[in-house]
Amino acid sequence: MPMAAMDSAKEIAEKSKEASYRLQNVPTETKDRALAEIRKSLVERKEEIFSANRRDIDSSKKAGLSTALLKRLRFDQQKLDEALRSIDSLISIEDPIGKVLSRTELDDGLVLEKVTTPIGVIAVIFESRPDALVQISTLCIKSGNAVILKGGSEAENTNRALASAIDDAITGVDERFKNAVQLVSTREAVRNLLELDDLIDLVIPRGSNELVRSIEDSTRIPVLGHAAGICHVYIDKDADIEMAISVSYDAKCQYPAVCNAMETLLVHKDIASGFLPKMAEKLKSAGVELRGDEATRKIIPSKPATEKDWMTEYNDLILSIRVVASADEAIGHINRYGSHHTDAIVTSSPATAKKFLDSVDSSSVLWNCSTRFADGYRYGLGAEVGISTNKTHARGPVGLEGLTIYKYRLTGKGHVVSDYVGEKAKKFTHRKLK
Amino acid sequence: MPMAAMDSAKEIAEKSKEASYRLQNVPTETKDRALAEIRKSLVERKEEIFSANRRDIDSSKKAGLSTALLKRLRFDQQKLDEALRSIDSLISIEDPIGKVLSRTELDDGLVLEKVTTPIGVIAVIFESRPDALVQISTLCIKSGNAVILKGGSEAENTNRALASAIDDAITGVDERFKNAVQLVSTREAVRNLLELDDLIDLVIPRGSNELVRSIEDSTRIPVLGHAAGICHVYIDKDADIEMAISVSYDAKCQYPAVCNAMETLLVHKDIASGFLPKMAEKLKSAGVELRGDEATRKIIPSKPATEKDWMTEYNDLILSIRVVASADEAIGHINRYGSHHTDAIVTSSPATAKKFLDSVDSSSVLWNCSTRFADGYRYGLGAEVGISTNKTHARGPVGLEGLTIYKYRLTGKGHVVSDYVGEKAKKFTHRKLK
Repeated sequence: MPMAAMDSAKEIAEKSKEASYRLQNVPTETKDRALAEIRKSLVERKEEIFSANRRDIDSSKKAGLSTALLKRLRFDQQKLDEALRSIDSLISIEDPIGKVLSRTELDDGLVLEKVTTPIGVIAVIFESRPDALVQISTLCIKSGNAVILKGGSEAENTNRALASAIDDAITGVDERFKNAVQLVSTREAVRNLLELDDLIDLVIPRGSNELVRSIEDSTRIPVLGHAAGICHVYIDKDADIEMAISVSYDAKCQYPAVCNAMETLLVHKDIASGFLPKMAEKLKSAGVELRGDEATRKIIPSKPATEKDWMTEYNDLILSIRVVASADEAIGHINRYGSHHTDAIVTSSPATAKKFLDSVDSSSVLWNCSTRFADGYRYGLGAEVGISTNKTHARGPVGLEGLTIYKYRLTGKGHVVSDYVGEKAKKFTHRKLK
Repeated sequence: MPMAAMDSAKEIAEKSKEASYRLQNVPTETKDRALAEIRKSLVERKEEIFSANRRDIDSSKKAGLSTALLKRLRFDQQKLDEALRSIDSLISIEDPIGKVLSRTELDDGLVLEKVTTPIGVIAVIFESRPDALVQISTLCIKSGNAVILKGGSEAENTNRALASAIDDAITGVDERFKNAVQLVSTREAVRNLLELDDLIDLVIPRGSNELVRSIEDSTRIPVLGHAAGICHVYIDKDADIEMAISVSYDAKCQYPAVCNAMETLLVHKDIASGFLPKMAEKLKSAGVELRGDEATRKIIPSKPATEKDWMTEYNDLILSIRVVASADEAIGHINRYGSHHTDAIVTSSPATAKKFLDSVDSSSVLWNCSTRFADGYRYGLGAEVGISTNKTHARGPVGLEGLTIYKYRLTGKGHVVSDYVGEKAKKFTHRKLK
């Protein structure tokens, strides 16, 4: 990323805005060619990238970074292979830009089209994982957006090597890609960027809830992010007990560190004594710590759960359990304490399932399957920008579509509004053509 | 609105959130019945409403409100008739909620649906026009959202009378509408509401740019609003001169006080001497003050335009004019100085038009027609929430669709993610069913 780090945040954002105007009209084949060149460049320069990554890992070890963080920081052959697969898949995906969403005749010769466009300039602030840099840059290229990236300081060498490989690849394909991908490296730069709401159209923080909140607090720019993932599975009185155990176990244990893992298990009182002992046994054998309400503790031994537990995202092998008197009580609990992320019901009653799916106000609501399915890849959206708990723009797992918006294109033959007002007003036809 | 004004902002927002959970499942016919009852209630109680409005107008006259503002404040038989027509049209419009946007088979028996839902709780802050209260409340009812309204203090009596007529009507139809529409009356209440990002999902300010900016600065809640409407018409060298005059005149003069009126006229140098004198004559006869750049002033007499003019929304009979050397220069000017609202080109060249429509980054881009067409009613969207210059969620004229979002609904038969990972991983089918 030549120079970018030496420019002021405003200069970077202005270059990004200029790039965004050029990028909105780059044809699909050119964007796909740029992606293919990135792929090639990453392969050709992999030793340089791996070596930069080893430097980052060495200094992070010296700085005493935890094993978990060191693992996230690693960019090796396996991570490269994953990145290449993801680029291949992105090349094969339909271009999300330039799609005519609707076409309406307003009157004879006056035709309105609603067409998808890039959003413009996107600032992405991500944590230590350098593979996120490749993923985000390529998503932005495919969707015609200019992107400004800020990665974790512990990954700085890796990020520079990756960004440089990407920048060289795309600017070699077409000069319109100049400044399409820019990297900034200081927190001060981020602070300054967040003030430039006339230049930056969307901020995507990928990291902790604290990061998301602090960004929301300090900018006028729309933020696409997610709050906590406090996800529930509700076992209805009409649940199949084996299915209930299997789904709950998967939701908790298949990958407990992620946002769509179950944090609270809600159990109907009529099935609790049949279900909980078997469930507890299986969970305990996986090392899960149980925290139950009073009714739960009458059936299985567990630590007591307090109200704070209902509001906690453990991201760990801990589970809070509550016995409820009805599906309505379960729905009420989820809407009150949950994070409106992903919640499931296990039941053989279609009526109860319908009520749950209709009434739980979450980005994903599931019936007889694990919360862990809530993910862009599994949903078939292609690469994933992230999971959003926003109630506007993009909700739930967000794919390429979340990086697009639309414009209206109206074509006439000299039409003027004054012909459509007053006593002799012409009438609009509003005929749907598409 | 019994009591609401006496509750704290938090209590009001909590009631609104509860209402929003009930409202998401109200059937279309019930919502339409509620709208019909509002219609009836407004007619039955019109004398009470008109009398409240007369009190507001009397005190505003005493307070020295301008004639323009007094006109906006008026709620009389004509405004009532308009409101009733708007309600009729809303009843006839398709329910935007519960629409299946897509359906995908992830694997045998595992089906994903993306379904439209209400956003939840919407806070609307609007200026003196009390008719906006009826429009917004009914839009929210049709789209299943709970709404908290804050109107201008000069319209307080009218707003209370209208809100009470609406509340009585809808709670009489179905108790789920309780607290669906709430009114707050103080600025302090608004300040407090803007802090409740866990309860309020969207803020819609309807008023001055200053209002929008100040709200964006003081909340984490997403804001749907619009900045200035600095709209352009570009007269290309290949324009038909008569059409250019007619379109420009309509864009400036048909209703100059609104956001989609033209503020700057850009003229290609090759057509300037043929076009500008005729155009100037017509504009001057309508009382339009002209402010031209140097090249313009060589052709027609006008005040000089400074850079500030290119960035000014006059909302008045004033027009800035600039001569440009090319369509590219016009596009550059618009992207740099415009407000990305609504911009038009007049040309007989399809290639130049395409370049303009593709490259101007505005919510509405128009070819050979007046900027004044950019409006929800004319676009056939039904009632209009407003015109948005946001680059996320909803852009341009926003109809009912802008008050909706979606959720993902996944239905399985006990499916768990652990079957889809590892060596014997099952494959997803990702078969598009809709």
